[in-house]
Amino acid sequence: MIIKNLMKKSIVSVVLVLNSFFLFAQTNEEKMIKEIYKSSLTNSKCYSWLDHLSNQIGSRLSGSASAEKAVQYTRAQMETLGFDRVYLQEVMVPKWMRGEKETAYILDNKSKTNVPICALGGSIATSKSGLIAEVIEVQSLEELAALGTDKIKGKIVFYNRPMDNEQIESFHAYSGAVDQRYDGAKEASKFGAVGTIVRSMNLRLDDFPHTGAQSYGDIPKSQYIPTAAISTNGAELLSKKLKSNSKLKFYFKQSCEQFDDVLSHNVVGEIKGTEHPDKIMVVGGHLDSWDLADGSHDDGAGVVQSMEVVNIFKNLGYKPKNTIRVVLFMNEENGLRGGKKYEELSLANNENHIFALESDSGGFSPRGFSLECDDAQFDKIASFTKVFEPYLIHSFVKGHSGSDIGPLTSKNIVKAGLKPDSQRYFDYHHAANDKFDAVDKRELELGAATMASLMYLIDQNGIDTKQ
Amino acid sequence: MIIKNLMKKSIVSVVLVLNSFFLFAQTNEEKMIKEIYKSSLTNSKCYSWLDHLSNQIGSRLSGSASAEKAVQYTRAQMETLGFDRVYLQEVMVPKWMRGEKETAYILDNKSKTNVPICALGGSIATSKSGLIAEVIEVQSLEELAALGTDKIKGKIVFYNRPMDNEQIESFHAYSGAVDQRYDGAKEASKFGAVGTIVRSMNLRLDDFPHTGAQSYGDIPKSQYIPTAAISTNGAELLSKKLKSNSKLKFYFKQSCEQFDDVLSHNVVGEIKGTEHPDKIMVVGGHLDSWDLADGSHDDGAGVVQSMEVVNIFKNLGYKPKNTIRVVLFMNEENGLRGGKKYEELSLANNENHIFALESDSGGFSPRGFSLECDDAQFDKIASFTKVFEPYLIHSFVKGHSGSDIGPLTSKNIVKAGLKPDSQRYFDYHHAANDKFDAVDKRELELGAATMASLMYLIDQNGIDTKQ
Repeated sequence: MIIKNLMKKSIVSVVLVLNSFFLFAQTNEEKMIKEIYKSSLTNSKCYSWLDHLSNQIGSRLSGSASAEKAVQYTRAQMETLGFDRVYLQEVMVPKWMRGEKETAYILDNKSKTNVPICALGGSIATSKSGLIAEVIEVQSLEELAALGTDKIKGKIVFYNRPMDNEQIESFHAYSGAVDQRYDGAKEASKFGAVGTIVRSMNLRLDDFPHTGAQSYGDIPKSQYIPTAAISTNGAELLSKKLKSNSKLKFYFKQSCEQFDDVLSHNVVGEIKGTEHPDKIMVVGGHLDSWDLADGSHDDGAGVVQSMEVVNIFKNLGYKPKNTIRVVLFMNEENGLRGGKKYEELSLANNENHIFALESDSGGFSPRGFSLECDDAQFDKIASFTKVFEPYLIHSFVKGHSGSDIGPLTSKNIVKAGLKPDSQRYFDYHHAANDKFDAVDKRELELGAATMASLMYLIDQNGIDTKQ
Repeated sequence: MIIKNLMKKSIVSVVLVLNSFFLFAQTNEEKMIKEIYKSSLTNSKCYSWLDHLSNQIGSRLSGSASAEKAVQYTRAQMETLGFDRVYLQEVMVPKWMRGEKETAYILDNKSKTNVPICALGGSIATSKSGLIAEVIEVQSLEELAALGTDKIKGKIVFYNRPMDNEQIESFHAYSGAVDQRYDGAKEASKFGAVGTIVRSMNLRLDDFPHTGAQSYGDIPKSQYIPTAAISTNGAELLSKKLKSNSKLKFYFKQSCEQFDDVLSHNVVGEIKGTEHPDKIMVVGGHLDSWDLADGSHDDGAGVVQSMEVVNIFKNLGYKPKNTIRVVLFMNEENGLRGGKKYEELSLANNENHIFALESDSGGFSPRGFSLECDDAQFDKIASFTKVFEPYLIHSFVKGHSGSDIGPLTSKNIVKAGLKPDSQRYFDYHHAANDKFDAVDKRELELGAATMASLMYLIDQNGIDTKQ
């Protein structure tokens, strides 16, 4: 009896000790996360950094002078944040320039109607006098192929499949439509088209044309054809007019040009880990943007949120156990050269990345994370759900993390993307209205706090489930 | 053995039948909810209704001609939606008018700085030449009381406690600050103040003054003093100037006036339930708005979402088991007369309301519901979580549902408020920028679908856990 009671007592004690340890750990983590959100909502720099990036520097297309200004500005700001080291990584990037503002009109019998277009990134120019031709509307690359050379030759192909409004997540609607923009010119050229016009990747009807990357793939340069995006309202109008006059003509003129690659930079800030300096956790976004606006959502927001993660840690005196790197990647939009260069240097240095987090889905209210990892790692991260609940972070799903961290290949690395509310993202994406005033200060700050919280939880708890 | 086996078989069969019944039910509900979201995102009328309400009718303060236009417009639209009956409920409402645009300036020695203000709803006017006096800044009603008559008499009291940015939900920050607006004039008058200026209920710094209800309570009319809101930037400036010159003066002029009550209306549309016509489920928002803007978020969004619930049911051919009423309440903003009248008539008719849902927190991305009910009812609604997850509806919490449904007293009634993302709500609330272009079409439609889904699930599954 005595022994049994003693054993019972011991077990009770162990349970109590374990329980209080657990409670203690929980409480400390909960406290820290509360402090993280408080710091971000009351004492952050991210909004004023974004103000500067957007309103003082402006659009930051790879190879532009303003992209380099952004490199110097963020480097200088990072140097105030108590990193052990802030440095640049040299990377050659493509340089494409839009040139003069594009013009376009529909010529229906003798009536001209101007419509808003913009050249797609990487497109060639039209001739100086512009390009005019009959139009053939298609809903897909498959429909294009089915029509074949007979129907396509000499014409402008008009891709008009809308993003699917039934999708709940706007990124799914984007994935389902963007092949028209990326591959449209290359495929149409194979059937003798003289140009392509693509309905903007936008879920709403408005007058903004949305640019974005396109690729001629490996077709010969002589077969490159000019390609542009048309606003959704413009696309609706063109389609309507084609229904009553299939012989109408479309005119457009653009003077964009591809130049030789130029030298640019990733910006990196590093804090050495106190316990595992060889284990690296990356948090980042991309410095470059398209040229039509400030790129405040894409991806000014991700840049300043990543910097804010370290600003929060500094304000709270938190010393990470693992090495933390803020990486501001160059050239996500039209080449991914920054992401590839970062991985190339990481491999050369035999580095071990355990975690990478990217914010490149806009500065909207954070909802959760999209994770690339195995099931055990997913379960570990999903176990943080309760801690995140008071901050309305509910959505932990497997899926695409971020383009810039895509090239990372460390064994067992977990990659995560911040998942903000996606409904308004494609109202602004790659268009002239992606400006500072489209970003809400609190939504931006909540995103930064959510990123800092996950970085903190993984720094504290580890993520390598195979140890 | 045989009997045993037979029994075993029977049990297996029962389990199989129950399982397939459960699966069948689940699958049908899931299918229906998918159709609800699809209908709202691809075939809804709510955005064009809101366009009309905001851009053709405009602001709808109780007692105004435009409020009555909104009554007639929504009644006419509801008559196209296949209700069994659409009717008006007469209700007497207060009529307060702003009059001329207010003016205000800080007089610091001889330098005048204009600042944006607006009279608070229900305030009296200043004299025709305006009011000028020294200012005393306080952070709370408690600080006011501690200062007392000696310090307050003859002065303008300036309430400047900001909404608390640490709060994750902006409504919590609002609750923590709004006593200054609602009770500020009444309390300051008791200590001999000649007027009050209240920092706008706004989490960000900008130039919009935000109006809203205030009350003189039961102090004698002779002691009423004029009260106005100042923009957050204006409040910061006034506070800064007071620090260097506590003797500066503040001038403001407003010509608002309270008139006799006038006749107005709630708009009601009713579909008789096929199985339980005596059990009533209400869905609604409020038709009136403040006068400074279109009131697109507050509460045009809630009005058109409530109507859309029935439009969705009509499009999908869904016949509710319980009686469904869309109620567009009048006078939520400065009297709640519509909500009280609805309940008064409901009591007179001995009606039984089992459920009421209000949308009055803006047309932003829906996040969940705030519920007033007992634990068993809460558990029943929380059991729908899985069905809502694909639509990113995660947040089911106990809390305030809606003001207009507040007066309802049916036994065992469950009250719910749609909970949209709250971060941007107070950027617009009661201010001149609460306009149509501040509402995103998809966010509005997702809100309507979320409301329709909960109405459907409760209609199907019931909610009275005490039967």
